[in-house]
Amino acid sequence: MSNYTHQTAPTQFVEAAGIRFAYRRFANRRFGATIDIPLLFFMHFTGTMDHWDPALTDGFAQDREVILFNNAGVSNSGGEVPASIEEMAQHAAAFIDALSVKKIDALGFSMGGLIAQQFTMDRPDLVRKLILVGTGPRSGEGMASLTPEAQKIFGARYDPADELWLQVFFTPSEPSQAAGRKYLERQRARKENRDPLPNEKVAPAQVAALQKWGAPAKDPYAYLKKITQPTLVVNGSNDVIVYTVNSFILQQNLPNAQLILYPDSNHGAQYQYPELFVEHVTQFLNG
Amino acid sequence: MSNYTHQTAPTQFVEAAGIRFAYRRFANRRFGATIDIPLLFFMHFTGTMDHWDPALTDGFAQDREVILFNNAGVSNSGGEVPASIEEMAQHAAAFIDALSVKKIDALGFSMGGLIAQQFTMDRPDLVRKLILVGTGPRSGEGMASLTPEAQKIFGARYDPADELWLQVFFTPSEPSQAAGRKYLERQRARKENRDPLPNEKVAPAQVAALQKWGAPAKDPYAYLKKITQPTLVVNGSNDVIVYTVNSFILQQNLPNAQLILYPDSNHGAQYQYPELFVEHVTQFLNG
Repeated sequence: MSNYTHQTAPTQFVEAAGIRFAYRRFANRRFGATIDIPLLFFMHFTGTMDHWDPALTDGFAQDREVILFNNAGVSNSGGEVPASIEEMAQHAAAFIDALSVKKIDALGFSMGGLIAQQFTMDRPDLVRKLILVGTGPRSGEGMASLTPEAQKIFGARYDPADELWLQVFFTPSEPSQAAGRKYLERQRARKENRDPLPNEKVAPAQVAALQKWGAPAKDPYAYLKKITQPTLVVNGSNDVIVYTVNSFILQQNLPNAQLILYPDSNHGAQYQYPELFVEHVTQFLNG
Repeated sequence: MSNYTHQTAPTQFVEAAGIRFAYRRFANRRFGATIDIPLLFFMHFTGTMDHWDPALTDGFAQDREVILFNNAGVSNSGGEVPASIEEMAQHAAAFIDALSVKKIDALGFSMGGLIAQQFTMDRPDLVRKLILVGTGPRSGEGMASLTPEAQKIFGARYDPADELWLQVFFTPSEPSQAAGRKYLERQRARKENRDPLPNEKVAPAQVAALQKWGAPAKDPYAYLKKITQPTLVVNGSNDVIVYTVNSFILQQNLPNAQLILYPDSNHGAQYQYPELFVEHVTQFLNG
């Protein structure tokens, strides 16, 4: 396999369940990426493969293969965005089966963390370890709709438009905003073969899926007992998009979960402390 | 300095504030304990220096000097146990001043975590970084008295007596109890010059101090804003002695705190996962 990075990995396509999925896979083979279980990334609301931080993807690719993909209906992937997390998880499973990959570690961020939970319950055979970042349980606190803070942040206009993520992922503090600007630079660094931005149908369908997942339910956390894989839950101290307490709830209800919360950080704590995050996750995956 | 370990470090004595304090200090000088800020350990309810886990103390002594001590009235230290955390913190400060140490990192476990908080507020000049393990804030959840679980556990008899700690520090699960038995073996391994067990005046005075700290108060977490040192908060997922939620409350209210919670673990999570704990704390101290 060629020695691609986040910047150079070509976008490939695979057909599964009638959908043409866009994906990229890469590993730093020259420097010892010898762990043969790939790390599959599940993306957040309205994101594409380009929204992942190269400090994370290339960081993990030192040790293992990384697989990014756009789920059905997102950007250059075919099909339609379904209005449920369950269908998103089914699409992801069809995609990974089409690659003939038999075992993965799964990293889900925000909405991607919901999909990764569902994916792990549906296909426990496929998942060795699970990493849940900036996410929450079914019927979590403030998850029945976008939080007031999220509504305000996503409702505003930004110039350039990707400065939206400074508000979504980082706190108002000067150090957090400075880390945010570095994240944006890293995220913009791939110049060629970037993904098209999602079309206007993506956000409404994803919001509908989020609201179904977050709706009040009886004994809503009971399902977490079924996720027996070793799990690492990570969040910022002050997540205003998926409130931080939801990470605590996940850890308290999952049978085998470690929790790490970082200081002075919002929804994108892993982009604020990328080296520490890669170190903590690598410890967890290799331990 | 001689190259002592947890097992071989002699008990020394220093006089301060009219009290003769027993202490031990050691570092693995041969193998590069080059960090010149010592790590000071604050002990839990009814514990002596011998209750620390050599996997931790010798683990940290690879990189830095470790200082253990018995506070006033405990075991071979002179004086009386005061009935307040504030006085315990003052005694600790007198002790460290008597050693002419000007800067430390502080690790407090359980009651020791309360003392370490107070010590850091009283003497911010002395403390570079703070580690709070299995502990909580003033007026924390279930901290106005011993928890019902703690009353039951501390009220029972054990044979041998130190099997008490299997119930205090570990969960009922088989893996946690197995880790507990390994901790007991490590903790018993120092054969010579062990500390005498605390006398019958220690527990009542410490309980009185714990109850004053835990009593309900108005805006009880406001004081945490004064602790601006980088802080690492660590606990088990199911601490029945100082409920786990108190670690979350600490992290949410301290200005610069990271939280780590370990799976399937009780009050002594750091003794259940000693290698991982030493690794996480070392990252935090060196980062």
